[in-house]
Amino acid sequence: MSYHLAIVGATGAVGKEMLTLLEKRGFPLKELTLFASPKSAGKTLSFKGADISIKALHEGCFKGIDIALFSAGKKASLEYVPQAVKEGAIVIDNGSAFRLMENVPLIIPEINAHALKNHQGIIASPNCTTTVMLIALAPLHKPYTIKRIVASTYQAASGAGALAMKELEEETAAVLNNKPYERTVFTHPYAFNLFTHNSTLTENGYVEEELKMVFETHKILEDPSIKVTATCVRVPVLRAHSISLNVEFEKPITKENAYSLLKNAAGLKILEDPSMNRFPMPLDATGQDDILVGRIRQDISQANTLEFWAVGDQLLKGAALNTIQIAELLCAQRVT
Amino acid sequence: MSYHLAIVGATGAVGKEMLTLLEKRGFPLKELTLFASPKSAGKTLSFKGADISIKALHEGCFKGIDIALFSAGKKASLEYVPQAVKEGAIVIDNGSAFRLMENVPLIIPEINAHALKNHQGIIASPNCTTTVMLIALAPLHKPYTIKRIVASTYQAASGAGALAMKELEEETAAVLNNKPYERTVFTHPYAFNLFTHNSTLTENGYVEEELKMVFETHKILEDPSIKVTATCVRVPVLRAHSISLNVEFEKPITKENAYSLLKNAAGLKILEDPSMNRFPMPLDATGQDDILVGRIRQDISQANTLEFWAVGDQLLKGAALNTIQIAELLCAQRVT
Repeated sequence: MSYHLAIVGATGAVGKEMLTLLEKRGFPLKELTLFASPKSAGKTLSFKGADISIKALHEGCFKGIDIALFSAGKKASLEYVPQAVKEGAIVIDNGSAFRLMENVPLIIPEINAHALKNHQGIIASPNCTTTVMLIALAPLHKPYTIKRIVASTYQAASGAGALAMKELEEETAAVLNNKPYERTVFTHPYAFNLFTHNSTLTENGYVEEELKMVFETHKILEDPSIKVTATCVRVPVLRAHSISLNVEFEKPITKENAYSLLKNAAGLKILEDPSMNRFPMPLDATGQDDILVGRIRQDISQANTLEFWAVGDQLLKGAALNTIQIAELLCAQRVT
Repeated sequence: MSYHLAIVGATGAVGKEMLTLLEKRGFPLKELTLFASPKSAGKTLSFKGADISIKALHEGCFKGIDIALFSAGKKASLEYVPQAVKEGAIVIDNGSAFRLMENVPLIIPEINAHALKNHQGIIASPNCTTTVMLIALAPLHKPYTIKRIVASTYQAASGAGALAMKELEEETAAVLNNKPYERTVFTHPYAFNLFTHNSTLTENGYVEEELKMVFETHKILEDPSIKVTATCVRVPVLRAHSISLNVEFEKPITKENAYSLLKNAAGLKILEDPSMNRFPMPLDATGQDDILVGRIRQDISQANTLEFWAVGDQLLKGAALNTIQIAELLCAQRVT
């Protein structure tokens, strides 16, 4: 069986990775339709050696499409996802608009593929930082029960899109050459600097990105009793997110327990060479499907607590790859 | 009264800041002697418009010197601090060699100036990250009792010296221009990347920098019952360290309690504009004497727990400024 797939937001950083992944993974395509904003309509993107023309969204544009992958921002999702569902497509949304809604499965295929069956036309792919964190921690939850997570993130430019990556490079070049630079994406200087994640600051002092890590964890691990706090920071790195994780478990756990469960877990790789003080770095994870995990240590400050370090390509497992994997899962469930 | 002061390591990143601070703060100098490695001997450094010739260390070189500020690396301190003391100087060492020794006061003047009186010729200035953290937290310990700190750091190049700062800039320029670059300071790529702090990895999986934050906190706050865990990371920032701090207290505490104590505390400034998602950044702290603190939030995952964000110039309060302040304190105690 093969499918008519659409990408909404095909010209974005995530959309382009989706195209590459569809080709690389041999997704069973009958047809591929690419949507983007009106200003990109009429342009083309290359896929399997052919040029595919980009279309603008309009009424009826999802008719005949089996699966629509959305990665065009929250506003576009809120406006066009309901239309896509109404016109018969199953939507996999990479954004946050529907993630916490009842009847919208929030899926990381390695963790909760079983939840997919409850979908009613919309399936959500989680926040990128949450995905990196949970790929590293989920295998430990059932045997040891995660009690509390204290996370601090080191997030790349790519999470804010292709223009943010360009801005980081251009502003850095300007600083190195003592030239002025006019930012258009971020409010705060980015070259050789870092700042609180640029999502909306909420009443309780947390930014939305941090609260996503809390509530999406509850939904994906199906356990709202897990306590999570997070500090999300944008660092001058191009496309991989790193996370420092302090995790308390209900049951006694050693770092050996954690290594032995994680070394065979799906979607991750342990990367370490202690003799070289060598642990996962953003450049290691860039372009890699797997989340890289390392530096697992017994926390010297508290019992039943481990420290973890996890790094993942924000554009791949953090976004495009996870979305495509959900689509593959959907196809597999349909044919079986 | 005025003093004959020496700087050991005068050509380094910290040494140069010391020179600037001595001039700026009007330190009561009778004479200033500058020491550096033999390869710098004979060169000059400018101070108050005059050129001071740099000397190499040799037997008897500390005779007549009242106070010697050491910032030339651990090896130089281990070799020459005992000699300096023997020859009659009081040493203030910016390195880690003597910090945890009995009879060596480890001083942050805003916190534990009283401990200075017990010195026996050697006084130590703390690890830079520890200083940034404790300036932000010490005022809360007496009234609320810190129980446990979970820290993740975002450390600048300057902590590894002037050559490390140069390497970050040069490697970044090379990457932007698609040119090869040969690193000489760090093992791992630094441009648009980050890595575990480059101090020695110890048996328990912590690097030395992380353990400094644990044991120096115990000594400075005179309370070994405080639990501390830390993850130290080198980020591509030039000269200010940032720290994400999750702090549990014994007694109930609100963020308002913390703000009200910290807003008048010595050595720090609250910097925030929530309407702009504006909190302390490394570029804000660069060149500033004060530690910048903000984003104080009630931790939503645990009672009696607050989140903090602290940023400080590693070369100033993290090193040169704190050392000079100790010298000033010493002079003040001598004359009174």
